[in-house]
Amino acid sequence: MNTPSAAETAHYTASTPRSRKLQAHAERYLPGGSSRGTAHWTPYPFFAERGEGHYVFDVDGNRYLDFMLNATSLIHGHAHPDVTRAIQEQAAKGVAFSAPTEVQARLAEMLCERVPSVELARFTSSGTEATMNAIRAARAFTGRPKIAKIEGGYHGSHDFASVSVTTPADSLDPAGPAPAAEFPGLPQGVLDNVVVLPFNDLEACERVIRRRADDLACVIMEPVVSSFGYLPAEPGFLRGIRGLTRELGVLLIFDEVQSLRTAPGGAQERLGVAPDLTAMGKIIGGGLPVGAFGGRRDLMEQFDPQREDAIPHSGTFNANPLTMAAGDAALRRLTPDAYERLDRLGGQARAKLQAVLDELEVKAVVTGIASLFAIHFGIDEVTDYRSKLQADAAMTSAVFIGLLNEGVLLQQSCAGSLSTITSESDIDTLAAAVRRVVQRTAST
Amino acid sequence: MNTPSAAETAHYTASTPRSRKLQAHAERYLPGGSSRGTAHWTPYPFFAERGEGHYVFDVDGNRYLDFMLNATSLIHGHAHPDVTRAIQEQAAKGVAFSAPTEVQARLAEMLCERVPSVELARFTSSGTEATMNAIRAARAFTGRPKIAKIEGGYHGSHDFASVSVTTPADSLDPAGPAPAAEFPGLPQGVLDNVVVLPFNDLEACERVIRRRADDLACVIMEPVVSSFGYLPAEPGFLRGIRGLTRELGVLLIFDEVQSLRTAPGGAQERLGVAPDLTAMGKIIGGGLPVGAFGGRRDLMEQFDPQREDAIPHSGTFNANPLTMAAGDAALRRLTPDAYERLDRLGGQARAKLQAVLDELEVKAVVTGIASLFAIHFGIDEVTDYRSKLQADAAMTSAVFIGLLNEGVLLQQSCAGSLSTITSESDIDTLAAAVRRVVQRTAST
Repeated sequence: MNTPSAAETAHYTASTPRSRKLQAHAERYLPGGSSRGTAHWTPYPFFAERGEGHYVFDVDGNRYLDFMLNATSLIHGHAHPDVTRAIQEQAAKGVAFSAPTEVQARLAEMLCERVPSVELARFTSSGTEATMNAIRAARAFTGRPKIAKIEGGYHGSHDFASVSVTTPADSLDPAGPAPAAEFPGLPQGVLDNVVVLPFNDLEACERVIRRRADDLACVIMEPVVSSFGYLPAEPGFLRGIRGLTRELGVLLIFDEVQSLRTAPGGAQERLGVAPDLTAMGKIIGGGLPVGAFGGRRDLMEQFDPQREDAIPHSGTFNANPLTMAAGDAALRRLTPDAYERLDRLGGQARAKLQAVLDELEVKAVVTGIASLFAIHFGIDEVTDYRSKLQADAAMTSAVFIGLLNEGVLLQQSCAGSLSTITSESDIDTLAAAVRRVVQRTAST
Repeated sequence: MNTPSAAETAHYTASTPRSRKLQAHAERYLPGGSSRGTAHWTPYPFFAERGEGHYVFDVDGNRYLDFMLNATSLIHGHAHPDVTRAIQEQAAKGVAFSAPTEVQARLAEMLCERVPSVELARFTSSGTEATMNAIRAARAFTGRPKIAKIEGGYHGSHDFASVSVTTPADSLDPAGPAPAAEFPGLPQGVLDNVVVLPFNDLEACERVIRRRADDLACVIMEPVVSSFGYLPAEPGFLRGIRGLTRELGVLLIFDEVQSLRTAPGGAQERLGVAPDLTAMGKIIGGGLPVGAFGGRRDLMEQFDPQREDAIPHSGTFNANPLTMAAGDAALRRLTPDAYERLDRLGGQARAKLQAVLDELEVKAVVTGIASLFAIHFGIDEVTDYRSKLQADAAMTSAVFIGLLNEGVLLQQSCAGSLSTITSESDIDTLAAAVRRVVQRTAST
């Protein structure tokens, strides 16, 4: 136990010879063979051939029940007929114009209707660009340079988001969160403008925020923290942060790039706390590259190009009609009923997974909300980054590879999400696969 | 003269009633009605309905011969059958996987083969993310925080690129380029880490670069500066910068997001100067959201996730197979013959436009290279940002709107590009339209 099982790896390698070859070939042109950290794992990733409904097929003909769903974005599974039709029809009419389109306004209208705090919105090409522009809006409005973020919170890959995301345990300041660069060479001028907060600790947050308020443009956080296993904030924490930021004239940005799928109005609706600005992404593009940011009218109007002093906001592919058409098709299918069903099945998934782990007497906790779930091995509770860091990384990797051998794909952290085409039987398949893999892994 | 012609605007407004209505509706959900500065113009943009070959059609049924081509990205025009087929086929097989694909490696291989300085590459979702990651590679490798950029150079919208791009004339330091924020609230910690250089002035650049060398990670520039009208660097300037940066251990990044279309190996091939890192975008995605960065093996290997100390590089839509399939189809059609034809027609376009302007005795200069062109009104020469700023902005806007009335779409700066389906007759149409509009505009 506690190291990735050699038997699992051997089995995986034996069943993916074509992927192994393609990986070696791809490494000649791409460092690591691809373009995403999340698309690489040890010993090597499988190469995807196609997706169909809940399944993804690799180049060796293996089939995986997909709960990774491209990092929660494929909320209707792969190649949903409605989305595929929208893409194919738009492709025939052109994929990109340097002028606005009706479908962009329609998708923006849907976002504004579903998320009441979003009075106006703008689209970007990625979630990274969404949080970056939300932060920009806050800085321009307040005239203050600093941002505050949660220790361990991921908000994309721009420079000011590249602080204290995956800080190793031995680099953490025992006195509390302190800005740490995600890679060498991040300028000190970036680190100096980021304040790092402990999640779920309102008292500590309040001390720091009050001390820095004069320089603080915004607090950015996920109301449901993806990297902590889709962990919703504790009751009171979000409300406390909301009250405090309002009092101090600090803007509150919710990164709902992933959590938007927890309710029609996102986690802010579900948890009952409205931010000033919201970053969105993933599901709103129907699987195509997308991001969006929106919020209070006075904040968003700063981007109106009709204003003399507008904040410039360009992007060749922002709101391209192919993404807009796919997003429109995807959001239309996300009816209140669809959300209700996702909720119910998500609850089942978490309960069944926890029951399997309890029954096997494996120390592990399942977290999540709505259609999101995560298994943390080796710990009983997750409340913040430091408690999450205590999880058993080797067991997590072993289970991830073991599940591939069972034909189930999760995120490498053993988190996942459901789609509108997930059935109870798919959840049973997941739970049974976890049972077999954990049994095997715990006994090695 | 020198103000946008009221007659042109009246004509435009009369022929675009449906767009006017849609714009008013869109402004309820999107500040300015859309998500790109370049997709908004005065009095309001037309709303695009569809594209077909060289034409884009608006919702009022007007047809425009399109030389904007989504900011140079649609090098085969709208909805090219090969690209459309690739998109439609891939859409049916799934648009996004959290695993690598063969088509990603194929596209990366093509980039590495065509651009010899690119030994390894990685894909991103936008050109913004491409320059951001190239800069990151340089900082991590050198351990130095500062970057140098050209005054007036555009490299996307991330924070370190948001310095001295569109500085107004009255804010320029007469002593020479100095860092100026593109919007209020950009932290001083960003400005302090950006050094601004004058284009085409090797002596001044050398003074500044030598003085800052110890802190300087990289110099980033477009070898063909888009915002100066696709102006190639003067002979000797690029070579001088290359020699100097090599001597000082400063990395040289070429932003070829637009100029890659000037030759199979980009402007670096055409101008004979190889950088350490290259940012790419636009044409390599077949019209879909894309970016890429690549370069020297030792620099790019920093992103290899198999390395313990790898620079993290994630992105849900990086190298998504829909973009890769479209890009693969687009690049395959870009044969040496296609580039040669684009070159020849580009030369014709520039010569014919200059001839029209000379004949009409309008002070104006046409710049560009290969398939790229730009008209600058009111000046005889462009060598850098400050000379470009002397151009007649009112005349430029008037001609842009006038050309819409003639059924021709350029960039708002009166720049444009050709596609592989552009014919000599299309160029004659453009030149004739410019003649009519300039005659009208100059006589009002």
